[in-house]
This record gives sequence, structure tokens and C-alpha cells, in this order.
Amino acid sequence: MSILISARSRLLSDQDWPGYRLVIRAPLRLDCGIDFGPFTIAYQTYGTLNEDRSNAILVCHALTGDQYAADPHPITGKPGWWETMVGPGQVLDTERYFLICANVLGGCMGTTGPQEINPASGEPWALSFPVITIRDMVRAQKLLLDHLEIDSLFCVIGGSMGAMQVLEWAASYPEAVFAAVPIAGAARHSAQNIAFHEVGRQAIMADPEWCGGRYLSLDRKPVRGLAVARMAAHITYLSEAALHRKFGRNLQDRLAVTYGFDADFQVESYLRHQGSTFVDRFDANSYLYITRAMDYFDLAAEHGGSLPAAFEGTRSRFCIISFTSDWLFPTSESREVVHALNAAAANVSFVEIATDNGHDAFLLQEPELFETLRGFLNGCAEHRGLARSR
Amino acid sequence: MSILISARSRLLSDQDWPGYRLVIRAPLRLDCGIDFGPFTIAYQTYGTLNEDRSNAILVCHALTGDQYAADPHPITGKPGWWETMVGPGQVLDTERYFLICANVLGGCMGTTGPQEINPASGEPWALSFPVITIRDMVRAQKLLLDHLEIDSLFCVIGGSMGAMQVLEWAASYPEAVFAAVPIAGAARHSAQNIAFHEVGRQAIMADPEWCGGRYLSLDRKPVRGLAVARMAAHITYLSEAALHRKFGRNLQDRLAVTYGFDADFQVESYLRHQGSTFVDRFDANSYLYITRAMDYFDLAAEHGGSLPAAFEGTRSRFCIISFTSDWLFPTSESREVVHALNAAAANVSFVEIATDNGHDAFLLQEPELFETLRGFLNGCAEHRGLARSR
Repeated sequence: MSILISARSRLLSDQDWPGYRLVIRAPLRLDCGIDFGPFTIAYQTYGTLNEDRSNAILVCHALTGDQYAADPHPITGKPGWWETMVGPGQVLDTERYFLICANVLGGCMGTTGPQEINPASGEPWALSFPVITIRDMVRAQKLLLDHLEIDSLFCVIGGSMGAMQVLEWAASYPEAVFAAVPIAGAARHSAQNIAFHEVGRQAIMADPEWCGGRYLSLDRKPVRGLAVARMAAHITYLSEAALHRKFGRNLQDRLAVTYGFDADFQVESYLRHQGSTFVDRFDANSYLYITRAMDYFDLAAEHGGSLPAAFEGTRSRFCIISFTSDWLFPTSESREVVHALNAAAANVSFVEIATDNGHDAFLLQEPELFETLRGFLNGCAEHRGLARSR
Repeated sequence: MSILISARSRLLSDQDWPGYRLVIRAPLRLDCGIDFGPFTIAYQTYGTLNEDRSNAILVCHALTGDQYAADPHPITGKPGWWETMVGPGQVLDTERYFLICANVLGGCMGTTGPQEINPASGEPWALSFPVITIRDMVRAQKLLLDHLEIDSLFCVIGGSMGAMQVLEWAASYPEAVFAAVPIAGAARHSAQNIAFHEVGRQAIMADPEWCGGRYLSLDRKPVRGLAVARMAAHITYLSEAALHRKFGRNLQDRLAVTYGFDADFQVESYLRHQGSTFVDRFDANSYLYITRAMDYFDLAAEHGGSLPAAFEGTRSRFCIISFTSDWLFPTSESREVVHALNAAAANVSFVEIATDNGHDAFLLQEPELFETLRGFLNGCAEHRGLARSR
């Protein structure tokens, strides 16, 4: 291939964040028509690549996730976002598999995004950053896999926007995907989800500190708008039942309502906390770009309007997972993917897991999710000729 | 009673808004403990009160509604919010019934709210306005009914926050309520709904034009924050199915996405329009106060934690109505009210109407809703000895 890739090197970013950086020097043609580059991909790995290079799992993160799936987050110090799933003896067993997790293109944890410097101007990209798509993110990941000399991934797995990337991988590079596990995802973003994203974007853009996107150059930060965007989104990640179970109408550190606008209720206090902590670790413009990428995702549209066509001739093994209480990516969306895969005569399992944890269930302790994945991955590993972990 | 009420007078407000104004001179004891007054109640009537004063229906409006149920809105010029329901020969037949609809306490269409002048300071009340409750709104309405010399309402009816007022009426003044119709409501605001309200309030308060609530005194207006609050709320009034049916992923006046942050999708354009038109007719501080009143609503808590106790000994006839696709006030909330009414041995009908119109169904053309209400009201009218309309 014609793309030059720099030598793999372990380095610390300006912010001393741990992990790998890969610089892609030759331009990448994006869906918007722009040839983009050079750019950096920041990624983490867990476990060891076997001699056959056949045990690699690509973990795709969600909207506000990053490459630190199983390391402490370098800004917040909190555990990795998928420590429930990744580790020795865990479902994604780091003693058996080689895991790769890369910050998406447009992200804000080391991979090039709107907060990085645009070499042409010497200023942060801000809104001069090109609008990227889920397919562009996957194209960038493919360059990383080429660099790692992994021709065939044992598995591509992810939840939410991660599931979109999994489906895009299976459609764009079927020969490189032995198994695909999209969790709590969809083949296209729904009108309601676009609407919620638009509310978040408007909240950010309404903040005068956003300054038309140029806040970094001006040493400002639209923290209030970004916090409101996060609060609105966070509600959609939960379920009414979970909110009722966790908070109900319980009051926060008081015996009676105060007849005011303080956070009387625990759920208000919780939501404010979600908003205020989020702004420490996430870039507002990245939020705009990544939500836009999700809005634009429509796998059928990329294949002449036919979702089965996206999977034509696929030999990958699919395990589609949804959650009963997920109203952001409801089971009906997963079922459409299953129908399309069946129409394409694909090898597909479909599991709807009963839980009241809502969309966020993929990040939580869900025994049925773990059991399902363990069984599916063990079956795939057997077919792939990988040693059983235990 | 000890409260002085001014003579009824038809007048035009400063803004030349049509309708009645009643000034309550003696203070009203609010739930927060403040004796509030004097204050104004702005209201509309439709139809004619009969000689027995037995055909009056009180229509209670929702969060962003007002007294113009069946008149053109004086600011927007749009039809009244319940013209589907109110009029000659309609379900709420103005040839048969005498309808009263009053702007709620804390509102912004003539009834005293945070945008009116605080006589003590000569400035708009802003955040010095007391935090009011649904019960306070109902207490104010009771004063209006006393003024109109209507001891017993034929019916109290309303949707959403209107339904909360209906339930409060039935609990606080059972002898004054012959029939009660809470539509798409609940006996308490859920954690998820408090959360959505909190997002809206934070969006308003994050707008620097809000100025700690003092925007009117400073000749400013938090239009962007209020628009974001409206956008977030508006999504919750619809259903995923309705959004999909109406908009899907259709593009707005373009053939392809623009790879930018314009309103590419129809649903974005629609939502922006909802936000930008709302700010012309609604006061941001009113939005804070009225959402807070809904958050605080918990009818069981007002009765020692027992919802049946709220309705003990009631002789009112209840018709509880919910909509299958309403996820803001789901059927389960109405069912709790029905259970409590049954426990209190009340006369209760319960109808869940199949529709994909979501929470807003009560404002729309819903033939089954109309049929249900017509049947229920005709039955009640017969028991009340009112003449059949046709």
C-alpha cells in the first residue's frame, strides 16, 4: 500500500499520558472528500500478540470513551471504562487475547481531533477540523492494524458508538474480521438520537465561551454548555427504572425540600456531578464532531440503501447483543441488523439481555452479558484454533 | 371566608392581551410558608354558566400552556392549545358547558409570576418570587372559583401538569369536584422527569444573559438557554415512533449531508424551530418555577405517604387516561393512581389509548381520546342532571 507509517514508539504525550502513538504520514481520504493528514492515533494494548498474530481483539470505544479501556484514566485517575470486561481471566482475557483500543479520529485523548494543532495555521483545528464519519474512524483503525501487521482480527467488539464501528468494520473489511460483537448499537442513528445530539450541540454552541469553536486559542472553555450537553445525554444512557431504583425522589442531604433551585433531589445532584466532572476530561469540539459522526452513520445508505448488501458474502461470525431497558439503542435496532445478517446468510447469534441498567448496561456488571460473550468467544476461539484460556 | 376579592372586570393587560383579570388582595398562604399577595389571576371563559351554576368545567393547562385554550394566542397568533377539544359541539362543548381556564400561579401570561413587578421593590420578582407548588396553583384557582361563585365544578380536566392539578383538586377540594379527568399525568414526578427538568433549568442558568435571574431589570434575555431547555423537553413530549414517522433521517432542503453543523436533518431543523419560537412567548424564570412545582409534586407525601389517603371518602367520578407511547408519563404512573382510587373505593374508569403520538397525544387529533371523553362526560352529565348536548 502507498501509505507511509512511522515506526511504532512508546511515548508520552505533552500531558504525559501513557500509551502508544502512531503517526500516519500519508493523507487519508475522508468521506467528506478531504485528504487528511498527517495525523496521530493514540492507542493502548493489553495482553500479547501470539505468533500466528491470530488472537487480536479490537475494542471500539463509545462517544465519550477513549483508549484507556483497562488502565486508570490519566486525567481523572478513575479505572478504565471496561475493567469489568478486560483483564486476566476476564471475558476479554488478556492472558489469551491481544487487545487493542485506539482513541477515535476526532477524539481528544491523543488521536488527532479538533483540539490538536492544525499544522497549516499553528492554531488548534477547532471548526476547521474536517467532519469525520464512523467509516473514517474505522479507516484510521485499519491503518493502525496494518502497522501492527495484523491482517485478521480475531474479534472486533464495542458498545454504542463502538457497535457502529464494529458493524462498519464487518462491512468494510470483512476478510479482516473473524468475529464481530456489536453491543447496544444500530446500523443507523435514529431521529430521536439525532435530536438528543442536536440538543447537546446547541447547548455547547450557546455557551459564549465556545467562541465559535475558537475557545482554545482564546484560552477560554465552554464548560457550562458542555456540562448541560453531558447531563442531557447522561439521562438517555440510563433507564427510568434504574433512576427510580437508585434515586427515586430521595432528597440530597436534607430532610425536606428547600423551596429553591438548589439540588434538593439526589438525582439532580448526581446529574450535576456528571456534568461538572465530564468537562475536565472532554473537549467540547470533540463532542460536536463525534456526535455528528454518529448522526451521519447509516450503513445501509453506504450500500445503495440495502443493509443486507453491507454484509453480502460475509464469513464473519456475529453476536448481536441488546438490553431490554435500553431506549437509546432499543432492541428493535439490533433486530434490524440481525434481519439483514440473516438475509445475507451470515452466521449470527442474537441475545437480548434482561436488565434495568439501560444503555449503559454494557459498561456495568451484567452477568448474563459476560456469560453470553464468554460462550460466543470460546466457540469462535475453538474455530480459530486458539488455545482455551481455562 | 376572610379573603377579599376584587370585582370581576374585563380588561386588557399592558400587552393588550384579551381576557379576564382577578386581583386577589388578601394574602394566600403558600406551601413554602410565605403569605403571598396581592396577586392577579388571568383567565379565559368559554360558554355560559347555567342557572344552577352546575355546568362549569375547569381546564388546567400544562407546563408551557396558558389560559388561551381556545382563542388565538395573543403573542404568536396561533390557535388555542386545546382547540381540538374545546368549542361548540366539541368534546368540551361550549354550548353545553361553561369552561374556565386560568394561567397558573408563577406563569407568564398575566397571572402573577416572576416576570411581574414585586410591589416591595418596584422591580420584577425574578428569583425573589416564592417557589410555588401544584397545590399553591390549585389554591389560587379555588379563589377564582369562589369569586365566580361556583361551589361545585362539573369537571376538572387537564393533561400533563394539568393532570397533576386535577388530582390535587380532587384531593384538596373533593366536594367541589363532581368529575375529574387527569390525562397523561402522575401522582408524583419521577426521578427521570426531575432529571430532564434539571437539565432545562441548568441550560437557562448557564446562559450569561440570565444574570442570576435579573435579566428583565437589565433588559437582557436568556434566549439561547431557554431554547435549549425547550428543545430537550420537546423530545420528551414525542415518541421515537412519531419522530421516525415524521422525520426519520430525512434531510432538510438538501440532497446530501453537508459535513458540517448546520441542520442537515429535518429533525434538527424542527427542533431548532421549536426552541427559537418558544422564547418569544415564554419567560425563562417562569420555566424555572413551573418545572420546580412539578418536581415537588408528590400527592402521597401530602397525605402521610399514602396515595389512597389522598382520595379517602371521595365521591368524585374519575376518568384516568394514558397513552401507550407516552414515556414521560407512562401508563404505569396512571395505573398507580387507579390502584389508589380503587383502594379508596372511588368511582374510577381507566383507559389506555393506543397511539404513537407520545405524551403530546392529549393535544392532538386522537379519535379514541375524544370518544372516551365524550362517553365519560355524557354519563357524568346525566348523573348531574345536565341537558344532553346532542
